[in-house]
Amino acid sequence: MKILTVDLGTRSYPIFIGDGLLGTFKAITEYAAGKRILIVTNETIAPLYLSQVNSMFAGFSQDVVVLPDGERYKTLDVLNRIFDALIDGKHTRKTTLVALGGGVVGDMTGFAAACYQRGVAFIQVPTTLLAQVDSSVGGKTAVNHPLGKNMIGAFHQPSCVLIDVDTLKTLPEREYRSGLAEVIKYGLIRDLPFFEWIEANVSALLERDPAALAYGIERSCQNKADIVAQDETEAGIRAWLNLGHTFGHAIEAWEHYEGLLHGEAVAIGMAMAIEMSLQRGHLSDSDVNRVSAVLDKLGLPLLPPQGMTPDIFIEYMQRDKKILDGGLRLVLLECIGQAYICENSPVADVIRAIQASIKRHGAGLEVR
Amino acid sequence: MKILTVDLGTRSYPIFIGDGLLGTFKAITEYAAGKRILIVTNETIAPLYLSQVNSMFAGFSQDVVVLPDGERYKTLDVLNRIFDALIDGKHTRKTTLVALGGGVVGDMTGFAAACYQRGVAFIQVPTTLLAQVDSSVGGKTAVNHPLGKNMIGAFHQPSCVLIDVDTLKTLPEREYRSGLAEVIKYGLIRDLPFFEWIEANVSALLERDPAALAYGIERSCQNKADIVAQDETEAGIRAWLNLGHTFGHAIEAWEHYEGLLHGEAVAIGMAMAIEMSLQRGHLSDSDVNRVSAVLDKLGLPLLPPQGMTPDIFIEYMQRDKKILDGGLRLVLLECIGQAYICENSPVADVIRAIQASIKRHGAGLEVR
Repeated sequence: MKILTVDLGTRSYPIFIGDGLLGTFKAITEYAAGKRILIVTNETIAPLYLSQVNSMFAGFSQDVVVLPDGERYKTLDVLNRIFDALIDGKHTRKTTLVALGGGVVGDMTGFAAACYQRGVAFIQVPTTLLAQVDSSVGGKTAVNHPLGKNMIGAFHQPSCVLIDVDTLKTLPEREYRSGLAEVIKYGLIRDLPFFEWIEANVSALLERDPAALAYGIERSCQNKADIVAQDETEAGIRAWLNLGHTFGHAIEAWEHYEGLLHGEAVAIGMAMAIEMSLQRGHLSDSDVNRVSAVLDKLGLPLLPPQGMTPDIFIEYMQRDKKILDGGLRLVLLECIGQAYICENSPVADVIRAIQASIKRHGAGLEVR
Repeated sequence: MKILTVDLGTRSYPIFIGDGLLGTFKAITEYAAGKRILIVTNETIAPLYLSQVNSMFAGFSQDVVVLPDGERYKTLDVLNRIFDALIDGKHTRKTTLVALGGGVVGDMTGFAAACYQRGVAFIQVPTTLLAQVDSSVGGKTAVNHPLGKNMIGAFHQPSCVLIDVDTLKTLPEREYRSGLAEVIKYGLIRDLPFFEWIEANVSALLERDPAALAYGIERSCQNKADIVAQDETEAGIRAWLNLGHTFGHAIEAWEHYEGLLHGEAVAIGMAMAIEMSLQRGHLSDSDVNRVSAVLDKLGLPLLPPQGMTPDIFIEYMQRDKKILDGGLRLVLLECIGQAYICENSPVADVIRAIQASIKRHGAGLEVR
């Protein structure tokens, strides 16, 4: 087992990474605030792993909320089911919420913990690659609004994060590949050696080789922990983590969160951000092709959905919460392994980048 | 004009108290984060004071949300109207919410500001006595759940609080008296000289004498600011502010927020808390009568609603968020002017106090 630390002073917490942890890692109980927990999970994950979480917390009073599975349920309405369960069960300020599932479960459980009685403890037990390498670490919690993703939320750090890589064995292929988009992101924004390692280990990653997985998750979490420790509330470099996300969120919102998966949308968005970095003179054409090739080999899409024009992108991007007072604020690359923030990107430049990315991938690479 | 400060380090903020401020105090604009505001108010207050807020923020881009008036609208559903307006208006992280109204508007606006894009600025412009002396200061924000008051919320401090005492001229008598309950509370929990001042100024307060009002509000805010500066998140003495509130919240929840006003319920609760303080040997019988007399003279009720038995109180009190792991945690008085926290109060003692308070006020004082 590896233990990383998210260093946030009195709110620091550990990330435990290993296999066979779920059900056996009883030390997790030390991170509960009291002797009661409410486990929040979903219909897909409950039959697979709920009993293992139950047995880890033997001796605790345990309640469970099982949510429907999917990003479209990440709403205030569904969030209210968690509040109902907490209040019906008379949970006090000393309760602990346990998020067992992917990013949706983690984000909603964390936000419920942030708001219930103005803040209670919670523990992240992520079961998807996306949640393990990204959303479970760093304390960003939220629900979506019909017009924008993660528009309603809070910063609320978990007490600990338990990552059992064995849970990835049951993860559907498409979701697994979607998670790889966020892994690649860390290489692109601040870790060239990690990007090179990913390039060299494409096959091992696609085969879910346990050693490759463990290393990829650990290094991703270390990158995330470093960034969060430097900039908890996204006043600065934490925004790098949004590489491709402003484009990606536009896709997800336009499809009402019922089309491409988050990581798929981010992959398309990263391709566009990289194209724009090229147009601004930072990347070479071969850099762009190199990044595109890795995304493509890992089975990620590079073209936006049919019918989603550059104008639609702009419309939705202007609603994104990362946009400040009209100007489009985007994360771009200075080079592979180094992100920067481009303030007030002209809309015309963004449109040009979207068009160039569509042209490059529509013409060159296989369309998935 | 008086200026008090809530001293919270980098999150410190001023409370401006005076008459004729609304519409003229343009310095308030310095407390906005950018050049856009969303004013949240209600149907009752909008016709009275909205145009004055509009003119204070001349030169700003201004949107308005007008909510229905009443505690029963302090729900997640109604909160969502604020989010809709923010997102429809493409408000960014640099927007500022302005709460114009009473406690319900302030609590909801503050909570919306806490959650929108994980936190934006907000300004409190309280127009009721209750909001001016209590809820607008200190950063507690929340909405109610059908089974409990303020169950879903956040700590989120405003950028400033603007109290124009002139707004009290339009406040209905019952709401005004309800606000006086919180004024008395400060005297009871930590400020004997203030309690004595209230006793000596009952008539002036009932007549809304401007000088008495200004002093009562200022001294209440100073007490609140002192407490919040010492204990922002209610780890300790801030809980004193809940004197009478655990009983009072039970009444409000049992009546579905459609019966007694908050301050009225708190007055009944304070009578019960004081009775319990007597039973625990802290207050004398004449102390209890002295406090009851002030509450009564200021037109506040002392008896719970018909049909609300002690058992019902216990049922609802056990759901209150101030209750920790089963034991009833209550604020009681050591003497008039000094509160303390009574952990794990036995349920039988609480029932006995409720019964004694009903007996005392049902037999002795006029029932309102």
